Amino acid sequence: MDSNTICAVSTAPGMGGIAVVRVSGQDAIPFTDAIFRSVRKGFTLSQASNQSLHYGDIVNTDGTILDSVLVSVFRNPHSFTGEDTTEISCHGSVFIQQQILRLLIDAGCRLAGPGEFTQRAFLNGKMDLSQAEAVADVIASTTAASHQLAMGQMRGGFSHELENLRLQLLKFVSLIELELDFSTEDVEFADREELFTLVGDIKSKITSLCESFSVGNAIKNGIPVAIVGQTNVGKSTLLNCLLNEEKAIVSDINGTTRDVIEDTFVYKGVLFRLIDTAGIRNTDDVVEKIGIERSFKKMDEASVVLLMVDATAPVTDSKKFVSDNIERIGDKSVALVINKIDAVSDAVLSEFSNMQLPANVHLIKISAKDRKNTDGLLELLHSLANLKHFSSEFVAVANMRHYEALQRALAAIARVDDGMNLSLPSDLLTRDIHDCIDALSEITGQISSQDVLNNIFSHFCIGK
Amino acid sequence: MDSNTICAVSTAPGMGGIAVVRVSGQDAIPFTDAIFRSVRKGFTLSQASNQSLHYGDIVNTDGTILDSVLVSVFRNPHSFTGEDTTEISCHGSVFIQQQILRLLIDAGCRLAGPGEFTQRAFLNGKMDLSQAEAVADVIASTTAASHQLAMGQMRGGFSHELENLRLQLLKFVSLIELELDFSTEDVEFADREELFTLVGDIKSKITSLCESFSVGNAIKNGIPVAIVGQTNVGKSTLLNCLLNEEKAIVSDINGTTRDVIEDTFVYKGVLFRLIDTAGIRNTDDVVEKIGIERSFKKMDEASVVLLMVDATAPVTDSKKFVSDNIERIGDKSVALVINKIDAVSDAVLSEFSNMQLPANVHLIKISAKDRKNTDGLLELLHSLANLKHFSSEFVAVANMRHYEALQRALAAIARVDDGMNLSLPSDLLTRDIHDCIDALSEITGQISSQDVLNNIFSHFCIGK
Repeated sequence: MDSNTICAVSTAPGMGGIAVVRVSGQDAIPFTDAIFRSVRKGFTLSQASNQSLHYGDIVNTDGTILDSVLVSVFRNPHSFTGEDTTEISCHGSVFIQQQILRLLIDAGCRLAGPGEFTQRAFLNGKMDLSQAEAVADVIASTTAASHQLAMGQMRGGFSHELENLRLQLLKFVSLIELELDFSTEDVEFADREELFTLVGDIKSKITSLCESFSVGNAIKNGIPVAIVGQTNVGKSTLLNCLLNEEKAIVSDINGTTRDVIEDTFVYKGVLFRLIDTAGIRNTDDVVEKIGIERSFKKMDEASVVLLMVDATAPVTDSKKFVSDNIERIGDKSVALVINKIDAVSDAVLSEFSNMQLPANVHLIKISAKDRKNTDGLLELLHSLANLKHFSSEFVAVANMRHYEALQRALAAIARVDDGMNLSLPSDLLTRDIHDCIDALSEITGQISSQDVLNNIFSHFCIGK
Repeated sequence: MDSNTICAVSTAPGMGGIAVVRVSGQDAIPFTDAIFRSVRKGFTLSQASNQSLHYGDIVNTDGTILDSVLVSVFRNPHSFTGEDTTEISCHGSVFIQQQILRLLIDAGCRLAGPGEFTQRAFLNGKMDLSQAEAVADVIASTTAASHQLAMGQMRGGFSHELENLRLQLLKFVSLIELELDFSTEDVEFADREELFTLVGDIKSKITSLCESFSVGNAIKNGIPVAIVGQTNVGKSTLLNCLLNEEKAIVSDINGTTRDVIEDTFVYKGVLFRLIDTAGIRNTDDVVEKIGIERSFKKMDEASVVLLMVDATAPVTDSKKFVSDNIERIGDKSVALVINKIDAVSDAVLSEFSNMQLPANVHLIKISAKDRKNTDGLLELLHSLANLKHFSSEFVAVANMRHYEALQRALAAIARVDDGMNLSLPSDLLTRDIHDCIDALSEITGQISSQDVLNNIFSHFCIGK
């Protein structure tokens, strides 16, 4: 970490009522003092106590007043970054924001890079790496669920628990290594029973965290819902209806949708990623064929499938389509959506109602065009999303980097487990234990290369 | 003014590192307390001193933590609005911003309307109306000049001076009205000499403020610069070059530009509003004819005219075009721009250099396509902008509402002046003095209808 004092606008870009410029580093207070004149005569920020607020003017180099501002002062280590920090709350014009940055740079600051304040907080030990990563997730969260997940991670989440297991492993491995130093004497400092229990604990903990990834990922990126059906059953109409915008082109022509169209919407705090697919039919059109191939692939990737049929089409055809595809869908959650119910008789509808369906398939009748019972469909989707077990205490991995490291940790600890069962020599065990410790360390950042850090923080916004 | 406690996000809309939610009103502190839990056990914001900062959590109604925040507390009257105010500095996710507003509304706040914080500052006597209006101008300023102008107005500017003159007028009018009460006794409480001097002062002050409007308006909305020339001399190429973007369609076809294209750019802190016009030529095309009419009109409205000729065209034609139009331009500042200089010999260029030109016409040779000497043109424009007299002490009227009221005040005070010269009876004078006082009062807001206030503050952003 360089020792420069950094500055950036921390509020959203653009014009607002107020904006906040953040300054952090060992010279944050004198550099802010250089451009600030308190209303209290003779008062400078160097005299300010920690966590105090000061009213005054930002003064241009020619002595004219740029703006009247409030400055908050935070003294090392009682700040977000752990360094001396000031926050200048100014009028939110883009011009004023730029000028304050210019004056600070003239005073000796440099512009902060993306996520550099958070990176410093990590490097100064204010948070571990997974907590630092969660800061960006908290800011990017758009739903209650993804917010809660990110907040949980930012406040410690599973990383405290992992850290605890990691420290226990470290203790064991050093004891075993001590044994190896005394190998001629055949001593046993590390209690094998305890180690065995610990390995079991770690295995089960990491396994459950790995399993939480599909839920965590769905919460963060949206629960993938594929709309699948024959051509012209109204898939794009339903997509537009659920998204509340004209995303897909709708026409009466069979095969209008060729691309896979994706977009997200939020219902009752849950993010859904809706995937419209090309209608499934036998076709000679090469482009359409590729589209249909993709439809099947998307269906495989989705957690929920909306299998859609047209109530006005011959019922036997629809039933055949359903039975042809239900096997392929397997045990995913399925909503069998009967569309265009306005245009058919009750007798036709009851034919659908009498279908024999597996337990994972839920029948629902709608008219996408007239938005008839689409609220019912949303409710069904919400229940199929199956986030009921997601309470405020629920901890899930939502970060691919963590998931990847956890998988390596799991493989390593499984090797330790096997090794112990096979009574492998201790020096072989220690290698695997170290692999597990290293993988866990990557998550919390005890081991991190500058490349990894750069990659993580480059996804942050400037000013955080 | 209603006594509700209002809340809004005061920082720019969208996602940022941090965001600030402002709460103002008599219950600002208890309502914030209702959703805030300090890290200091047992501490509530009701115990907070004025201008203090508090770290803690925003807590959902179910007791879960929404976010960790810093809350600033300002106690009536030591706040922007003059009311009890809190500012909640939270993580800048849109979700968190919305949820904090929702929690505050549940606690009893209502959402603030546009500019409502500033309106309250005005209604609570923290600033006069022209200062309140300047708050929006400060936020919208994009150049050093417009910023300085708005800052001057926000910090008092001419309104303090007007207020002083208004109070003196008020004193006189009440003395004259006292005389009228004693009319049978022929007393004279108001010193006519002094009044005469005051009327003269007010007239000259208001006259100079009215005259400053053209400068103030140019600073605020940009100095209008019209590019005028025959077809295909390169006007649109120059516009694109100065704006640094492909705004106008450029082609070799005469008459490509039919609409008047306008956009602004900033050079050395001065805002220019550049107006590309249809090329001037004789044409039968109806649409093009309308465009040419508009070119002439825009030329009349501009403060600076870029009269453009093509160096590759016959020199006599170009000279004729210049002399035909120079008269129409009158005494505006003119840059006679010789374009496409790369394509002609020095001999041709010297023919232009030898032209006899009026003092207000400045010759400059460029190649817009190759950006040759376009910096020189920018420098020339900057000097023609003639804002040299605009120093940090310069006060100008930039607001149409103020200008309109000043014109009415000027007309009224001129009638007072005339009336005194004609020795009109005092009761006739007082009516005109009242008209002048009323017009001045409208500027600073001693007289303001809710309609006027609504109109003014509706142009503000939410949260200011």
